[in-house]
Amino acid sequence: MANKEKYIQIYEVGPRDGLQNEAQPVPTDAKIRYIEALARAGHTRIEATSFVRPGVIPQLSDAHEVYTGLQNQTGVRYIALTPNRKGMENGLAAGLQEGAIFTAASEAFTKKNINATIDESIARFGDVMALASDAGIPVRGYVSTVVECPYAGKIDPEAVLDVCRRLLDLGVYQVSLGETIGVAVPDDIARLLDVLLKEIPAEKLAGHFHDTRGTALASVFRAIEFGLRIFDASSGGLGGCPYAPGAAGNLATEDLVYALHRSGYETGIDLEALALATSGIAQSLGREPTGRVYLACKS
Amino acid sequence: MANKEKYIQIYEVGPRDGLQNEAQPVPTDAKIRYIEALARAGHTRIEATSFVRPGVIPQLSDAHEVYTGLQNQTGVRYIALTPNRKGMENGLAAGLQEGAIFTAASEAFTKKNINATIDESIARFGDVMALASDAGIPVRGYVSTVVECPYAGKIDPEAVLDVCRRLLDLGVYQVSLGETIGVAVPDDIARLLDVLLKEIPAEKLAGHFHDTRGTALASVFRAIEFGLRIFDASSGGLGGCPYAPGAAGNLATEDLVYALHRSGYETGIDLEALALATSGIAQSLGREPTGRVYLACKS
Repeated sequence: MANKEKYIQIYEVGPRDGLQNEAQPVPTDAKIRYIEALARAGHTRIEATSFVRPGVIPQLSDAHEVYTGLQNQTGVRYIALTPNRKGMENGLAAGLQEGAIFTAASEAFTKKNINATIDESIARFGDVMALASDAGIPVRGYVSTVVECPYAGKIDPEAVLDVCRRLLDLGVYQVSLGETIGVAVPDDIARLLDVLLKEIPAEKLAGHFHDTRGTALASVFRAIEFGLRIFDASSGGLGGCPYAPGAAGNLATEDLVYALHRSGYETGIDLEALALATSGIAQSLGREPTGRVYLACKS
Repeated sequence: MANKEKYIQIYEVGPRDGLQNEAQPVPTDAKIRYIEALARAGHTRIEATSFVRPGVIPQLSDAHEVYTGLQNQTGVRYIALTPNRKGMENGLAAGLQEGAIFTAASEAFTKKNINATIDESIARFGDVMALASDAGIPVRGYVSTVVECPYAGKIDPEAVLDVCRRLLDLGVYQVSLGETIGVAVPDDIARLLDVLLKEIPAEKLAGHFHDTRGTALASVFRAIEFGLRIFDASSGGLGGCPYAPGAAGNLATEDLVYALHRSGYETGIDLEALALATSGIAQSLGREPTGRVYLACKS
């Protein structure tokens, strides 16, 4: 972090956002090995799992075992989703270092996805934030569908601003902007950030852009021009797209790291060690990741 | 082409640059169907084949049959590589509408790839250009390795400028800048165009960026900021990367068209009809294309 201007913080979401969208169940110890390999590759923010109601997301039903199985490592923070009071309680019982709450900028999406209005979803977070505050741990916020919703179409940037503001008022230290369906081009991101940055400083915003149509990296570069320095990505592009077999979902961390390093930015991440972590979990999944750099490096 | 500012001309290179790097031989009539489907999708510049010495590139040894099998279509120009005098003669015998000559900005690359120095490669083109001029057909120029060479490493933009200048002096109407190995990030393209555009007008330059590491689209957007309005792409991303099985090579035309249209540019290409053309040739190849939009649209 010698050069703050040039440092980009990556949040690795492979173990949670990635695996959650993979059909093949992964044994708990393979997840732990994966997460620890990601930390060895230099990741300092790793979304490790989600403390949801058992059975809701079978792939993540071993949240307690995964989380308690992780070795603490200096400088590395393991994050877990804590969607409600019970989730945060379970997280804290597992020694949670950082929680995360999530909602969307589209009413139609929260209805379908978490069976609540945006208001209701935010009302639930009061308890979560109070528990986290008592325990002295930070909480990150996620807003999905910041550009377009699969049910409601285009989303007004003002609606995104409103939800971001409410999450920040609740006490999250940062909001990750989820371009959930991977339709955005750089101009979409520019239009969104034009609105958000009038009220919210860039250091409180992260970009979480899906690469379903190959546009995520271009959007990252545009966001960097706006001052954003925090991005989410999934090693190997894990996570796919639940709607399209073989299609890409998350932006692959290797693709992001490669492009950032070559552009003169620092991430603290070692690309080879990262690809090794990806290759390990790919074996458990029994499928090739979709990340371009991962595939190019293999040869 | 109502709005010149907003029109982007795409050169479809799938049938030549794409198929040339595919292992699976494709029957001549499947190639013709593919090229005509590309034209129906709205492509007006299609690199159809290459008139090389028989046996050099087995996949393209049916150049005459392919080219003479194509129906002329208003507004559509079928281009073929014509690397030397014999190639241009064979092209003209097949009714060639537009030729193309190619060299590289790296001595090491021309040596390995066409067994000639850059000077020698350019000396050969005198005959080709004279024949084309007599026949009244335009010739396009290609320069490979404009950013980095697999053998010689980074390439000085001044070396690229020198080769572009010589091709333009020979009479090519346009030079396509080949980022052959797909390592470039937008800053590489910016550094290159900073130098080239001091001497060459943007309308004489095309971007041909490989997507091996997922960076091509981001590079296209940067090139657009510099005034470039012509880009090469391969339907479905056909062509792969000869060095890495499963890895991407050419930028997929669908990915480019999707991103351009959503950014407010016009290309004249219908995305669905294009994906249909890709899906037809993919059947002949017996493999899934790597293009993101193609894969996302399939579901």
